[in-house]
Amino acid sequence: MGTTIAIDAMGGDRAPGEIVAGALLAVEELGIDALLVGREEIVREHLPGGDTPPGVKLLDAREVIAMDDDPARSVRTRKDASVVRCANAVRDGDASAMVSAGNTGAAMAAALLRLGRIRGVARPAIAVPIPVPGDHHQLLVDAGATVDATADWLVQFARMGRAYAQLRYGLAEATVGLLSNGEEAGKGDELRKQAAALLEAVPGYVGNVEGRDFMHSGRADVIVTDGFTGNVVLKTIEGALRSLAGLVFTVLESTPETRDASKVVTPLLLDAANVFDPDLTGGGLLLGVNGVCVISHGSSSARAIVCAAKVALDAVEGNAVDRIKEAVVDAG
Amino acid sequence: MGTTIAIDAMGGDRAPGEIVAGALLAVEELGIDALLVGREEIVREHLPGGDTPPGVKLLDAREVIAMDDDPARSVRTRKDASVVRCANAVRDGDASAMVSAGNTGAAMAAALLRLGRIRGVARPAIAVPIPVPGDHHQLLVDAGATVDATADWLVQFARMGRAYAQLRYGLAEATVGLLSNGEEAGKGDELRKQAAALLEAVPGYVGNVEGRDFMHSGRADVIVTDGFTGNVVLKTIEGALRSLAGLVFTVLESTPETRDASKVVTPLLLDAANVFDPDLTGGGLLLGVNGVCVISHGSSSARAIVCAAKVALDAVEGNAVDRIKEAVVDAG
Repeated sequence: MGTTIAIDAMGGDRAPGEIVAGALLAVEELGIDALLVGREEIVREHLPGGDTPPGVKLLDAREVIAMDDDPARSVRTRKDASVVRCANAVRDGDASAMVSAGNTGAAMAAALLRLGRIRGVARPAIAVPIPVPGDHHQLLVDAGATVDATADWLVQFARMGRAYAQLRYGLAEATVGLLSNGEEAGKGDELRKQAAALLEAVPGYVGNVEGRDFMHSGRADVIVTDGFTGNVVLKTIEGALRSLAGLVFTVLESTPETRDASKVVTPLLLDAANVFDPDLTGGGLLLGVNGVCVISHGSSSARAIVCAAKVALDAVEGNAVDRIKEAVVDAG
Repeated sequence: MGTTIAIDAMGGDRAPGEIVAGALLAVEELGIDALLVGREEIVREHLPGGDTPPGVKLLDAREVIAMDDDPARSVRTRKDASVVRCANAVRDGDASAMVSAGNTGAAMAAALLRLGRIRGVARPAIAVPIPVPGDHHQLLVDAGATVDATADWLVQFARMGRAYAQLRYGLAEATVGLLSNGEEAGKGDELRKQAAALLEAVPGYVGNVEGRDFMHSGRADVIVTDGFTGNVVLKTIEGALRSLAGLVFTVLESTPETRDASKVVTPLLLDAANVFDPDLTGGGLLLGVNGVCVISHGSSSARAIVCAAKVALDAVEGNAVDRIKEAVVDAG
C-alpha cells in the first residue's frame, strides 16, 4: 500500500484527460495510490478499458467548480464538488494529501474549511517554486492566497516558508528575504516597514530583497510578500520569459543561416529551458492548513500532475505539516 | 538656439564620464543645448580640451547626492546639490527640462520641491516604458514615486499616464489597465477593488490586467499600479530577462557545434535584444510635477543620456505638462 493522494480529476484547463493520465503515471512512477475524485462515468472514460488499475480508486463527486467560479461561495454551496470531496478525503483519513489544478481559490477554500488552519496560523499562504538556473528553486510566499496581508501575517509566512524550504530542498538553514522596492533598510511601503522590524526575529532573515533577486541564487531561498504582489510577480515572470523566448525563436527562424544554426541549438535550448517549465516545478504547497494540499497551475499536463503528486508525497513523508506547526509554535 | 536641457552631470553609477559624453552626443544628435550641472572642475575634465563646445553650458553645483543617500533629507539640506540646481534651472526658466540618472528619490524630491505639483494632482508617479517586441512600449505607472497609494491617486496616475502615452507614442486613444491578480472584475486587494470602481470613469479603461500582460501588446498601453508594486515589477522583469538570457548564452557556448552556431545567431540576438536595453527605452517621465523631469536608470551610459534627453525634448515640444494638466483638470 502506497500513500494515498486524492487528485481532483475535474480541476484544470486540461481536465479530466491530462489529470487522469497524470494520476496513472504517478501511481506507476511514484508508487502512490491515487484516489481520483470526480464524476465517475467521466473519469472512467479516461481509464484504459474503463477499469481502475491497481493503485487507483475512484471517488464519485457530482459537481465541478470552474476556473472562473467564485471560490468561497462555490465551496460553501457545492458540497459535492470534486475539490471539496478531495479535502474531505484528507480530513477523514481516506487520503494523506490532495492535489488540484483547478480554481486555486476553491482549492484553498476547500482545504481551509475542511482541514482547518494550523493552530496559531492567522492566514494561509501559497509557497510557489521560482526556478533558479543551476540551483534549487526559490520559494515565493505568498503567491496569491492572502491578497490583503498584515505585517504579522507576513512574519508567519516567513516562518512557514522557511520550514518548508528546508524540507523541500534539504537546506539546513534557509534564508528569508522580504520583497521590497530597495535593498536598503527603511525601503518599502508602510506594510513592508512594519514587517521588516518584526522579521528581525525570524531565523535566516536577510533583510529586504528586490524583484531582480528572483531567479538568481545567493540572496534568499524564501522571498516573502503579500498574496497580491506575489501573484503579480509570478505572472510578470511568466510574461517576461514568454516575451524573450518569443524573440529568441523569431531570430532563430529569421534566415536560412539561422535556421541551420537553430537545428543545433534549439534542442539544447528547449532542454535547458525545462528549468522554467511550470509543469516541472511541482506546484505550490498551501502553507498553514492542517493537511497537505498541493496546487498545480491551471494548464497542468499529465507530467505536471506527476510532479505535483511528488511534492505531495514528499510533504507527507517529510511531515511538512508538523514542521510548519513547529515553526509557528516555536515563535510563541 | 535649441531647447535647453539641464543634465545632472553627477548623477548615476557612471557619472560624470558617461553623463557628460551623453550630453555632448545629445547636443550633436538632437540639436539641444545642454546645461551640464555639477562640480565645474570635474565636469571640465570630461570635456574635450576642458572647453565647452557650442551648445554646452556649465552650471556649478558643489554638492552631490549619492545613490544611497536619503532622498528627501538630502534635497532639503544640500541646496547646492547638482540635482537640486537642475530643478532650480527649470523653475527659473534657464532650462526647459531636467534629466538625471542619479538617486531617483532625490530627483523626484528636487522636482517636487522646486517645480511644484500640477494643481489638483495629489501625488506624482513615474511613467516607465516597458519594452514590447514588435510594438510601441507600454507605460508602467507608477514605477516607484508613490509607494503607498490610495484609490484616488491610482485614478490620477491612470489619467496622467494615458495623456502621456498618447503623446509619447502618438496614440489616438491609449488603453489603460489596472494591474491586479486576475482579469475578472472583483479580483484584487482592497486598494485595487476600490480603484477598479473609480477607474470606470477614465476614458480608455479596459479593466484589470495581469503581470503576464507586460511585454505583450494588445491588452493595455498603460498599466497602473502603486509605486511599490510597480518597482517590484520593473526589477522582476529585469531579473527574469537576465536569468533567461544567461541560460541562452550558456547553451550557445556549451559545445563546439553551438559555438559555431553562435557566430551566426549571437549578433542577431544581441541586435534583437536591443528592444529590452534599458539604455534605449529613454527613461521615465515624472508625471504630476509642473515641469519636465526625466529619470534615467542608475547605470545609464552616454547612449542612455541621449535617449533620456530625447524623451525630455519630445515632452517639451509636445507640451506634455499641459496635456497632463488637461487630463487631470478635465476630470474635475
